[in-house]
Amino acid sequence: MSDQIGVTGLAVMGANLARNLARHGHQVVLHNRSQARTDALVEAHGSEGDFVPTGSVADFVQTLQRPRKIIIMVKAGAPTDAVIDEIAPLLEEGDVLMDGGNALFTDTVRRTEALTAQGLHFVGTGISGGEEGALNGPSIMPGGSAEAYELVGPLLESIAAVVDGEPCCTHVGESGAGHFVKMVHNGIEYADMQLIAEAYDLLRQGLGMSPAEIGDVFADWNTGDLSSYLIEITAQVLRHTDAETGAPFVDVVVDEAEQKGTGRWTVQSALDLGVPVSGIAEAVFARALSGHREQRRAAQQVLPGPGTTWDIDDRDAFVESVRQALYASKVVAYAQGFDQITQGADQYGWDIDRAALARIWRGGCIIRADFLDRIAQVFTDEPDVTTLLTNDYFRAAVSAGQEGWRQVVAGAARNGVPVPGFGSALSYYDGLRAERLPASLIQGLRDLFGAHTYQRVDKEGSFHTMWGEDGREVPA
Amino acid sequence: MSDQIGVTGLAVMGANLARNLARHGHQVVLHNRSQARTDALVEAHGSEGDFVPTGSVADFVQTLQRPRKIIIMVKAGAPTDAVIDEIAPLLEEGDVLMDGGNALFTDTVRRTEALTAQGLHFVGTGISGGEEGALNGPSIMPGGSAEAYELVGPLLESIAAVVDGEPCCTHVGESGAGHFVKMVHNGIEYADMQLIAEAYDLLRQGLGMSPAEIGDVFADWNTGDLSSYLIEITAQVLRHTDAETGAPFVDVVVDEAEQKGTGRWTVQSALDLGVPVSGIAEAVFARALSGHREQRRAAQQVLPGPGTTWDIDDRDAFVESVRQALYASKVVAYAQGFDQITQGADQYGWDIDRAALARIWRGGCIIRADFLDRIAQVFTDEPDVTTLLTNDYFRAAVSAGQEGWRQVVAGAARNGVPVPGFGSALSYYDGLRAERLPASLIQGLRDLFGAHTYQRVDKEGSFHTMWGEDGREVPA
Repeated sequence: MSDQIGVTGLAVMGANLARNLARHGHQVVLHNRSQARTDALVEAHGSEGDFVPTGSVADFVQTLQRPRKIIIMVKAGAPTDAVIDEIAPLLEEGDVLMDGGNALFTDTVRRTEALTAQGLHFVGTGISGGEEGALNGPSIMPGGSAEAYELVGPLLESIAAVVDGEPCCTHVGESGAGHFVKMVHNGIEYADMQLIAEAYDLLRQGLGMSPAEIGDVFADWNTGDLSSYLIEITAQVLRHTDAETGAPFVDVVVDEAEQKGTGRWTVQSALDLGVPVSGIAEAVFARALSGHREQRRAAQQVLPGPGTTWDIDDRDAFVESVRQALYASKVVAYAQGFDQITQGADQYGWDIDRAALARIWRGGCIIRADFLDRIAQVFTDEPDVTTLLTNDYFRAAVSAGQEGWRQVVAGAARNGVPVPGFGSALSYYDGLRAERLPASLIQGLRDLFGAHTYQRVDKEGSFHTMWGEDGREVPA
Repeated sequence: MSDQIGVTGLAVMGANLARNLARHGHQVVLHNRSQARTDALVEAHGSEGDFVPTGSVADFVQTLQRPRKIIIMVKAGAPTDAVIDEIAPLLEEGDVLMDGGNALFTDTVRRTEALTAQGLHFVGTGISGGEEGALNGPSIMPGGSAEAYELVGPLLESIAAVVDGEPCCTHVGESGAGHFVKMVHNGIEYADMQLIAEAYDLLRQGLGMSPAEIGDVFADWNTGDLSSYLIEITAQVLRHTDAETGAPFVDVVVDEAEQKGTGRWTVQSALDLGVPVSGIAEAVFARALSGHREQRRAAQQVLPGPGTTWDIDDRDAFVESVRQALYASKVVAYAQGFDQITQGADQYGWDIDRAALARIWRGGCIIRADFLDRIAQVFTDEPDVTTLLTNDYFRAAVSAGQEGWRQVVAGAARNGVPVPGFGSALSYYDGLRAERLPASLIQGLRDLFGAHTYQRVDKEGSFHTMWGEDGREVPA
């Protein structure tokens, strides 16, 4: 089953992916803009497999057998376009170009159209798992035509993470589908991390626990429903002591979370699709707020808090309530993310198998979790489910934990602990199940000031009230 | 002071603006793609002033004196481009084209560049106040060069709403600045309406008050700090009875709030700028959620609530708490909106006078409110203020109401009433004033799985911990 593949762009991600490919018996033709990186890779890791270094792009392309299979591992945006523009003219009909960077999915759609018109295959491929994953088995989300996937799918599957004997790689859908789901994956990752951070903050402020003690709580949680890579490494980070000061590591780190764009893209896309992803949005905004250093300094000096002391009698019960809040909020975040995938697939005409997607996220990627088995099961059993939340398993899980969830959000509000993620998830849950929402008032206001019209609960049609006159209703 | 102006696009907004101009003594040259509308306007309102109907675009342009002043009142997007493409080639150097539609500000930037290159002036002009405002005095937000504003500013100021003798029209800034602030205005309007809707919902669910009784509460609130157009018309809508059924009007309206795009644009722009506008985002998402009919039906049937009865002893105190929550959350929403304007001005190089902007929002537009006088005062007194929240007046107002705000958010969480706006605003407030945020944990996680590095509180530089090895720290 060994194959040949070209890798261009040999920074850490590209180099690690090349090594992963070579270790799996494939011949890997190497190219990098500056040849020094190519030589360094062969020098350091040449013994791991069959590497063929090349110099120029022309040399790279000529060395590859037809149909050529090339994966581009350079920065998203203009650098990716530059590489495509340089290589594509040298390729021949039926060759396959893959983009393994974090491209914006609309760029992938554009590139797919342009390259398809040139008779080439283009496979926009989400790859999650960071440097470690690239080397030892990432979660791979390729998008493109079925024909293209037939050519490169086996190769990609051979280097992906494996869970229960299945590779964490599947043909996600046509065109930009792979980068689209990778984007939503990253958005979910933002939400997940924000919720974890709030749980930590609540345990610390509510119970005065030390980071190491909270690390033990997370390690314990990792043995149950919450079991996941992010919970596992949270325990590790919280237990870590700074060697220089002897202080808990999290206390020496500046509390300003950075971001690289995919969370923002996810929310912007969800807004276009009309899907409420409040959990992801609050997570992106919480990071943005944390980085507004001057505002925070000014606010810290003068804005008063509630002046309460959070008095918690039953400490174990509180820890359990926080766990319930975390789990319930996490279910909401994943429900919202999968809604975005459902709507995106519908809007852009991609046939995305959500169960298969949940399965390839079980390994290799940052949000890998036992929990994803459950999600895969839901989409297998109930392909028409409108939200994960109504599925028996998740409904029962959330409802069993809702008392704790409500207590935690209420306590945080009274005692001045910010819980944008937990609070927003709870409002989403209560909004979704509400028999009547006050949106009817909003429609009334819009009709009054802008003649935007409204619908009635008791008959078809659109209506407008003559607010400025006698208040009679007219069909619109 | 009478002038001449051309208006093209005579649907309701354009026709009303033309009448407003004519009533103020200007000669108004009329054009519409189908001449029937032009004729109908002259037929119905010809006696209100000096109208000059024209037929073809060439006729329209030839009738106007140089430098020509033309305002385009057609739909945003492609229709606006179509009109510009048709008219611009007929114009001469120094003529002024204005776009009074709800254009996306990036389109305005693009059009300004293209038309400036052709020697024309382009003024992207936000106009708020709906049909009524267009006729009787809107709030007008023109963006463009100082030279262009000199040519058309007096004309626009003459038809704007007037507050304290000042016209609600000011030169906002260069290029897309006018449409940018109009967009943020609409985003704030979304947040404002969502908060009002939550206040109504809480009074209804918490106290079992009827819509008409709640209308009385809003009428009362309208005499105090909250005094504003939206509060005033909320009282009107809530007190309105459906003639057909005798039921409260808000109970016969379908509870699905619609949206036309500017709220979404505001959040997408804020994400690009890195400004947390959680209040606007939650408002946009709450509308989106309300419209997901199938999900809501499925959720209503199976998702359990807390099963509590909200038992409120002191009804007056609760009403007052809701008022405090509404006011405090509103201050947060405006603080966030003005942050976006500050960042946008900085990012796009526009010199926006925020005090002047707050003043022109006091009349004519949907968010007009007494409150804006206070905001104008802040930016006059403290031009370097980093957030409205730290200003003495607003800090005192929020801090006086924070106990009620916290009680309301906590009670809503416990009793199952969705408060995405109130809750998110409170979390923002608590996040901003927090001495330490759990963002340090997020940075630690990012460093562990992605080698994204972090900063330390005790020394300069970026650092990385060798998590997979011995946990030593290295400079990054």
